[in-house]
Amino acid sequence: MFDQERFEKQLAFIREIDKEKMIGRQSYLTDGKTLENDAEHAWHMAIMTVLLKEYANEDIDVLKTITMLLIHDLVEVYAGDTYAYDEEGKKTQAEREAKAADRIYSILPEDQGEYLKSLWVEFEEQKTPEAKFARTMDCFQPLILNDATNGKAWKEHEVRRSWVYKRNQTTANGSSDIWDYARENLIEKNVRNGNIIDDSKDQ
Amino acid sequence: MFDQERFEKQLAFIREIDKEKMIGRQSYLTDGKTLENDAEHAWHMAIMTVLLKEYANEDIDVLKTITMLLIHDLVEVYAGDTYAYDEEGKKTQAEREAKAADRIYSILPEDQGEYLKSLWVEFEEQKTPEAKFARTMDCFQPLILNDATNGKAWKEHEVRRSWVYKRNQTTANGSSDIWDYARENLIEKNVRNGNIIDDSKDQ
Repeated sequence: MFDQERFEKQLAFIREIDKEKMIGRQSYLTDGKTLENDAEHAWHMAIMTVLLKEYANEDIDVLKTITMLLIHDLVEVYAGDTYAYDEEGKKTQAEREAKAADRIYSILPEDQGEYLKSLWVEFEEQKTPEAKFARTMDCFQPLILNDATNGKAWKEHEVRRSWVYKRNQTTANGSSDIWDYARENLIEKNVRNGNIIDDSKDQ
Repeated sequence: MFDQERFEKQLAFIREIDKEKMIGRQSYLTDGKTLENDAEHAWHMAIMTVLLKEYANEDIDVLKTITMLLIHDLVEVYAGDTYAYDEEGKKTQAEREAKAADRIYSILPEDQGEYLKSLWVEFEEQKTPEAKFARTMDCFQPLILNDATNGKAWKEHEVRRSWVYKRNQTTANGSSDIWDYARENLIEKNVRNGNIIDDSKDQ
């Protein structure tokens, strides 16, 4: 039996999350001109997960990981994007995002809202193999875009080497292979060529 | 053993598909201002599949369906988007897209390139439950956006009722529930309010 009331709730959610396409990020696309948005970022990471799952430190449930990545930024529809290096914004980020999660997931039928919200909580808690690998994707993907645009966003924000390492302190938890590659070929390369400011000798 | 050559091929593909974010479509986002791009469209349909799989006519492998949807428009990175109602463009679409598929999937390690290309072929052939449901999503998603923007793209393109039915002739194959809902609540409603031109009495 088709339950129209249930279907209308699902549709209302599907319409509401369209706003994720309007949430801008700080990374430039590979054209070096357009800033990426959250939906594009999630799409990219979902395909990356299909291709790079073989490098996960622990076996992952790929569907669960992809679903987590597809939805993990939906809270930003209400809470806004908090830039990885925005220390002020990060102070209130958790509270803003928890309220946003309650609001957006309550649009869905209860079973589905609870499921998606639980995936978001799992991502935030960083305890499961899927959450760890999803975080690896979430940190690795902007490194790829930054490197491909000769560090445009890094240079605009005068990003320091120590900030990048702090941001990536959990990247190895999902995949030590990807972290080893990224550290040498994406981060240190861009420190050497000046796209990331080398503050390793500042104390 | 980490195979750096393999990883570099995967990365080259991941960088190349970034261009999908620059492939414009003819649907407006729910803000009624911005035209959607292929990556946003794919992201939206992937989440829709997680939420709406219960309406599939036949059981579907959700991971396979999502992967198919995430990658099915990648050929447009080289072949461009062909609007659903562009009859001239559609004459050369299959040939342009087949060449594009060979080109883009050959960037990947052979096993992964063959797998993703096979998913694209499966989508195009429309024989499996996953391909049918993916097509249902591919037709249903722009109906939602068009309806949410008071038919803005329909009106700009002077879209006729018969065109929408022709475009949706396979939508019921993946889900008769979704098609029944869409026909009455998204299509016929917009014929009645004039957003879609009623040509049902023209012969």
